[in-house]
Amino acid sequence: MYGLIGKIKSVEGKRDELIGILTASTGEMPGCLSYVVARDPDDAEAVWITEVWESQAAHRASLQIPEVKAAIAAGMALIDSFDVHISTEPVGGHGLKPAKS
Amino acid sequence: MYGLIGKIKSVEGKRDELIGILTASTGEMPGCLSYVVARDPDDAEAVWITEVWESQAAHRASLQIPEVKAAIAAGMALIDSFDVHISTEPVGGHGLKPAKS
Repeated sequence: MYGLIGKIKSVEGKRDELIGILTASTGEMPGCLSYVVARDPDDAEAVWITEVWESQAAHRASLQIPEVKAAIAAGMALIDSFDVHISTEPVGGHGLKPAKS
Repeated sequence: MYGLIGKIKSVEGKRDELIGILTASTGEMPGCLSYVVARDPDDAEAVWITEVWESQAAHRASLQIPEVKAAIAAGMALIDSFDVHISTEPVGGHGLKPAKS
């Protein structure tokens, strides 16, 4: 499995709009086992995204899905900075959905 | 919802054993929507844990479950340090299991 932990800061006042885009586009991504979008309670512009994918290849492939490309294009205008970007190797746990293929 | 993103460092050489404890004890926690344990590919002792709970109260209550208390006791001997501990407010995404009650 392949994981990502990221922190993005929105343009001031645009966090909710950015979250709306991030959560709207995550329904049906092949190989996506978990994709959680969260507010940072201590930073009005910060968004945490934690992801689990079947493989790094599945994550890369998702970036070519038309809906995802459109979401990235729309989201970029609302993003001020990428503050944290950590790759992980998930090994197990609870709540990982069976992958859609 | 209530989220946690944590990074723990194991005692040298004890990461796999620590991960075994962390993943064995997470099956049936009321109010737990996601609990993912991951290796850090760049740090042989580091473990990332990302969690989503129905509420902070559900997370607190889980710490009193006998199996969880036993896992914490067993795990503490294998932990060198708690490096990251971030609370979040998950708002949505994909792969959040319905909570068991």
